[in-house]
Amino acid sequence: MVVIFVIITYDVDVKRVSKVHKILKKYLIWSQNSVFEGEITEGKLKQCLGEIREIIHPKFDSLYLYQISNPKNLQKVVYGQEKAYESMFL
Amino acid sequence: MVVIFVIITYDVDVKRVSKVHKILKKYLIWSQNSVFEGEITEGKLKQCLGEIREIIHPKFDSLYLYQISNPKNLQKVVYGQEKAYESMFL
Repeated sequence: MVVIFVIITYDVDVKRVSKVHKILKKYLIWSQNSVFEGEITEGKLKQCLGEIREIIHPKFDSLYLYQISNPKNLQKVVYGQEKAYESMFL
Repeated sequence: MVVIFVIITYDVDVKRVSKVHKILKKYLIWSQNSVFEGEITEGKLKQCLGEIREIIHPKFDSLYLYQISNPKNLQKVVYGQEKAYESMFL
């Protein structure tokens, strides 16, 4: 089972923001605004992206997936406030 | 000279969004919404963060820096539209 670290950022039409957010929330941790992150297996990621693809409009929406093969290679530094999940408005 | 790949996401008060955006634009490539990315030397990154720290309010603003030590460990996949820099509204 291969676990990777991913960062997903999205910019989708306001009509679809909530749906995309809900799918990502099932698989990853909300980071900030339209950014999610977390460790995930390749299988779960495939499943997540399958759900996303059913929602987003390829012409108007945009989703970027950053995959880091080894989480040891990633360092996260927070400047200012670390926003808690509870501060999420959705 | 050590070059690293960084992803920077920010969530700052609307009064400071434009200033933060302008600083990041000098050093990195705008990706989407409040997300910047790119390869950068450690020295330039330090300089960039120094400028940012002068602008952001530690109690109300938030900036996340993801550092990937070896860009080879990172893979970026785009779903939907790849937003061009020109589509930026600022």
